[in-house]
Amino acid sequence: MPKRISRPKQEQFEKSLRGILAYNIRFFRFENGISQEELAFRCELDRTYISAVERCIWNVSLGNIEKIAGALTVEPWQLLVPPQ
Amino acid sequence: MPKRISRPKQEQFEKSLRGILAYNIRFFRFENGISQEELAFRCELDRTYISAVERCIWNVSLGNIEKIAGALTVEPWQLLVPPQ
Repeated sequence: MPKRISRPKQEQFEKSLRGILAYNIRFFRFENGISQEELAFRCELDRTYISAVERCIWNVSLGNIEKIAGALTVEPWQLLVPPQ
Repeated sequence: MPKRISRPKQEQFEKSLRGILAYNIRFFRFENGISQEELAFRCELDRTYISAVERCIWNVSLGNIEKIAGALTVEPWQLLVPPQ
């Protein structure tokens, strides 16, 4: 059975640009109803890489921001906007 | 005498995320009236790096997008919004 995807808690996000990116990826994953595995598959990146990005571990490159945004069908800039 | 900074031509920007970033950095540099040297100094990066970013050569990292945005006093996401 697939793991349930939970909506990220806005008050819990790490207040850094990495934290904003992590929050937004998780948020749009939730909106799209897709797992880390599915997102990783869609953007041809490794599942462990997506997981690390969501844990603010990686200094993601522009090229990968573009791939992830494409897979989530959002504009790249939307991934960097702080949650309201 | 310092080199005059010219406003970037909107119709000339390269239609890729690197091109959008390059256009916006140049645009906000123009708005701030600062040279590549001054921008590089403010964000503690090399002038040749800024020059390469503006020529779409580098796959810039999130950390450097943050530094450049800070030096241009804009939000990081503003650097990724396509010119209107």
